[in-house]
Amino acid sequence: MAHINEHYLKLQAGYLFPEIARRVAEFGKTQPDADIIRLGIGDVTCPLPAAIVQAMHCAVDEMGDEDNFRGYGPEQGYPFLRQAICGAYADRGLEMDTDEIFVSDGSKCDTGNILDILSDDNVVAILDPVYPVYVDTNVMAGRTGSADANGRYAGLLYLPITAENGFVAPLPDRHVDVIYLCYPNNPTGTVVSRERLAAWVDYAREHQALILFDAAYEAYIRDDDIPHSIYEIEGAREVAIEFRSFSKDAGFTGTRCAWTVVPRVVQGRTADERRVAVHDLWARRHATRFNGVSYVVQRGAAAAFSPEGKQQIAERVQFYLGNADLLRAGLQRAGITVYGGRNAPYVWLKTPRSLSSWAFFDHLLQTCHLVGTPGSGFGASGEGYFRLSAFNHRDRIDEAVRRMAAALA
Amino acid sequence: MAHINEHYLKLQAGYLFPEIARRVAEFGKTQPDADIIRLGIGDVTCPLPAAIVQAMHCAVDEMGDEDNFRGYGPEQGYPFLRQAICGAYADRGLEMDTDEIFVSDGSKCDTGNILDILSDDNVVAILDPVYPVYVDTNVMAGRTGSADANGRYAGLLYLPITAENGFVAPLPDRHVDVIYLCYPNNPTGTVVSRERLAAWVDYAREHQALILFDAAYEAYIRDDDIPHSIYEIEGAREVAIEFRSFSKDAGFTGTRCAWTVVPRVVQGRTADERRVAVHDLWARRHATRFNGVSYVVQRGAAAAFSPEGKQQIAERVQFYLGNADLLRAGLQRAGITVYGGRNAPYVWLKTPRSLSSWAFFDHLLQTCHLVGTPGSGFGASGEGYFRLSAFNHRDRIDEAVRRMAAALA
Repeated sequence: MAHINEHYLKLQAGYLFPEIARRVAEFGKTQPDADIIRLGIGDVTCPLPAAIVQAMHCAVDEMGDEDNFRGYGPEQGYPFLRQAICGAYADRGLEMDTDEIFVSDGSKCDTGNILDILSDDNVVAILDPVYPVYVDTNVMAGRTGSADANGRYAGLLYLPITAENGFVAPLPDRHVDVIYLCYPNNPTGTVVSRERLAAWVDYAREHQALILFDAAYEAYIRDDDIPHSIYEIEGAREVAIEFRSFSKDAGFTGTRCAWTVVPRVVQGRTADERRVAVHDLWARRHATRFNGVSYVVQRGAAAAFSPEGKQQIAERVQFYLGNADLLRAGLQRAGITVYGGRNAPYVWLKTPRSLSSWAFFDHLLQTCHLVGTPGSGFGASGEGYFRLSAFNHRDRIDEAVRRMAAALA
Repeated sequence: MAHINEHYLKLQAGYLFPEIARRVAEFGKTQPDADIIRLGIGDVTCPLPAAIVQAMHCAVDEMGDEDNFRGYGPEQGYPFLRQAICGAYADRGLEMDTDEIFVSDGSKCDTGNILDILSDDNVVAILDPVYPVYVDTNVMAGRTGSADANGRYAGLLYLPITAENGFVAPLPDRHVDVIYLCYPNNPTGTVVSRERLAAWVDYAREHQALILFDAAYEAYIRDDDIPHSIYEIEGAREVAIEFRSFSKDAGFTGTRCAWTVVPRVVQGRTADERRVAVHDLWARRHATRFNGVSYVVQRGAAAAFSPEGKQQIAERVQFYLGNADLLRAGLQRAGITVYGGRNAPYVWLKTPRSLSSWAFFDHLLQTCHLVGTPGSGFGASGEGYFRLSAFNHRDRIDEAVRRMAAALA
């Protein structure tokens, strides 16, 4: 009988969202007629922009036509898409080569897959609370011990971000090899200043650490002084890999396209201190364990960079940010302290009356028929906090605010 | 500086197809006007069937419509597709639950990803020659030592399939934990009889081994007595995982969709001999490291099971098999010994005059401007053999046969 990867057995029961689904289903059994509003999972609700729909129709027609049919594409993505992505960086004054862009089917996949090219003995730092996939994929790869009573795994360095430190991630007080940063932040909806991000890049350069920078929510930045890419920081190209996605701005959560930037100058090392270009390893992984993104999807993604596509995406982002404003204002009127939601589609709130995150989840579900995400599900330091997603139709957001005003105020 | 996964450094230079591309590009420099016929990589040339094109157009329209838009789908695939897949198995008298079907973006990905849930100390057996991804992904995972002069990695058990044993894979003469079988076979185009596959299942049951059965070319079987699925063999459900793909029959090499069957009864074990359902581990991997296949692509894949879709796919398969017949006959007329290509889209030939595989590659490229795949690229036991793919337009196949008749006869 084949031996299994036993590290999987260290994973704690259920990924966060299945547990939420379970509680909602249970509630539904007791109140089958309840009109539940879902602000839990960060899933977009606006349809694909017309420019993207049109591009996908054209691509489907090409695939049905003998002369224009496409079989295997380049594993790293078609040049037309990689060039469009480079163009978008160039618009911000950032130069990169097309072969530093790796197109994939999602940032969730990329942030997990990147671990394959790193050895198991790296010391990994994450923010707390954090996107659970960063943690779980490290557990699965065997880079941690078991979890303690708070759900924290031995071997990971947790860097708390809470109201006490203004959600500013403290630099590690020791040496780490790999650091995950996600800004605009999931789950707290907070951002990182240029100065603070520069301090992180300095830390990484000093410690020869690798920063895995997840910028999936970049499009939601509205304050001019917030960096959109880690490469806006001097020296970041040597120490940072950046993950970007079409999911949250172009509405690709169900269409699946993302990209990862691996600058050629990022290096890793072997046990005997030889230096190896991380780019070469990632290119090899991409070619051997992946077969490229669907041509039709890549054509749709490329249309996100057309003038019409950009405009239609900007309208969606504005719309969701308007939702976030409504949620923030509504919660504040109900006397609840809120964070985030200014440059991000997530509002992070302090639970009232010192309720635990799951107690507030149940309370909100029972009294408002409203589903959010318990902060503790994102890590021990998320306890006492709660996330509401601004991704929904406007009438649902308005109704959510009304219900909260009635039940919580 | 982050430590890298040094197992990657054991990989031998270049994946097979990049090396072919390099030689073809070099040839192109000396003869820029040569009309090169490519029968190397197994990539389809027929456009997507009309039923699939239509389904994808409908799905794109849904995604552009507020009321029908879909965000995140189930990571394991939409029920409509998993049910259609179960229906196709049921048509062959094979019963499985929809939750035993995991939809993915490709069998290449799946056959590599499955290793993530297995520990590194399993003894792995592969056929030789073999699809290089099976080998390379085990190397990357650290399940092998270094390669020897023949390109064989220490720690893997190679089971030669050659003309001497009629391309019938011998059972291992020792205990192994994991076995890759691919039938109809890539690269040799040969098949496995029901009796022989039953012997493999018996071996796996006796040794509590896990069979990874790659049936990507199942649609090409035309002999009635050849099994289409390993689950046609009594007892296989307890020991086998089956990989299937839309790539080679429905023409999805550039559209990307596949599935893996993991029966609930397949078990693995921990070091202390506890038993664990492999299904649970794979479900967890799917949910944590993957985010589902594009909705539009899944709708296209589901149309492969409609009456029109089935008919249009059958026509394509017949067409490619006709190509294979032409290649076989042409090679035989040129005095070359051929194998495979009866129930598979690959013709496997013995190189004339005991040429090495790469020498024949260069010879064919120089004299016929024809690109195939050197057998030795698939493993040491492939030396002296050569693969021609039947995936191409008819006029190109005819022209290839004409050139070979002139140059090789």
